[in-house]
Amino acid sequence: MDNNKKLSIIAFSGDFDKLTAVFTLATGAAAVGYEVNIFFTFWGLDAIKRKQGRSFTGGNWLTKCFGFMMGGLKVTPTSRFNFCGAGPRIFRSLMKKNNVATLEELVDAAKLLGINFYACEMAMHVLGLKKEDFIPEVKDVLGVASFLNLSEGGQTLFI
Amino acid sequence: MDNNKKLSIIAFSGDFDKLTAVFTLATGAAAVGYEVNIFFTFWGLDAIKRKQGRSFTGGNWLTKCFGFMMGGLKVTPTSRFNFCGAGPRIFRSLMKKNNVATLEELVDAAKLLGINFYACEMAMHVLGLKKEDFIPEVKDVLGVASFLNLSEGGQTLFI
Amino acid sequence: MDNNKKLSIIAFSGDFDKLTAVFTLATGAAAVGYEVNIFFTFWGLDAIKRKQGRSFTGGNWLTKCFGFMMGGLKVTPTSRFNFCGAGPRIFRSLMKKNNVATLEELVDAAKLLGINFYACEMAMHVLGLKKEDFIPEVKDVLGVASFLNLSEGGQTLFI
Repeated sequence: MDNNKKLSIIAFSGDFDKLTAVFTLATGAAAVGYEVNIFFTFWGLDAIKRKQGRSFTGGNWLTKCFGFMMGGLKVTPTSRFNFCGAGPRIFRSLMKKNNVATLEELVDAAKLLGINFYACEMAMHVLGLKKEDFIPEVKDVLGVASFLNLSEGGQTLFI
Repeated sequence: MDNNKKLSIIAFSGDFDKLTAVFTLATGAAAVGYEVNIFFTFWGLDAIKRKQGRSFTGGNWLTKCFGFMMGGLKVTPTSRFNFCGAGPRIFRSLMKKNNVATLEELVDAAKLLGINFYACEMAMHVLGLKKEDFIPEVKDVLGVASFLNLSEGGQTLFI
Repeated sequence: MDNNKKLSIIAFSGDFDKLTAVFTLATGAAAVGYEVNIFFTFWGLDAIKRKQGRSFTGGNWLTKCFGFMMGGLKVTPTSRFNFCGAGPRIFRSLMKKNNVATLEELVDAAKLLGINFYACEMAMHVLGLKKEDFIPEVKDVLGVASFLNLSEGGQTLFI
């Protein structure tokens, strides 16, 4: 396998527009034969939570609060022009109107294309999340060293 | 050509300070012989709009609004300490005072150094922008796959 | 030395959570034998200031203001859910509770692991900072070209 044809993304941000960038890059790369690894960490973990929508999951009251605030793809804000949540809705509407895949469609495409989803061990500890809290497509829980090992020799992006 | 001497930047952010980082890295690399590709997407497209300043361009009223809100380099905010627009002005003043190239000077330098500007096809669809809306230095409109192909083997940054 | 075992990070952001990501990645990589270079620029310079805490350092009143606003690791905000400064405190508490290294512990670990700290020349000019304003672990003040030269052949991230 051509080792250069590899794209690894550290999905740190939970913003709607940045997650759209993550999944657009990932699916675009996978469609032309790249091996694609996404390492979800911090706010990015939002994208792979099983239970989308605001809910109080997590061990103690603090992590429960994060569970509520990080409500998944349906309620994630944009990094700019959020307007109390109107921003993502405007984007969705523009994407549909212009026949561009929406974020949810991109995530589904990523699953179909066999893109590798990984969750960051450290961030899970901090936010009180367990592997069961994530969608079944999450292949593994990894530390930094394992992820760097996976991504070696390809292009790596921090988004 | 030394394939390692290649720097590719995905310019996603439209913030004054991050665009300054984009163009500082790009011109610094080009000055020492790197091949430099910048792929402007989402808010980053602001930097290459022909008509700088707020204006209602774009197909429907929603994209027109984005045309107004993304008013180009003159009105772009800083990611931190923006103070309703004072932030970028403070930066400009500090840059002039300390003989550091301002953002506009860096963009001009990038053009002179033959840095390759590309616009992201998908983001253009979403925001209702056409190739004619950009400065003539924009070499091409690309999808993700073509950009990854261009950047392969070098260093790639997402800013 | 295996040239692929190299991680270079451009630490642009001064946000608590992003700096945590910088130092988690850096220490994780160094622990498994990577050569790690961190190039601190703009708000990221906050992390390596000798005098942590808000203070009026810098040449003129404008740079003094930045000296005050960029108050170092103790007062840096989170990029999301900052709540006027409560965000970082919540994180610190969660990190301690869950036995995850705090940001200060990660910075100390980075020093012990021999990670290379560099400061960005251009940003220092703009913000009115001198090499003496930084912790002694900062190896050198570099321009873009020198940093790209150092990072060549490894993985480079912009955070």
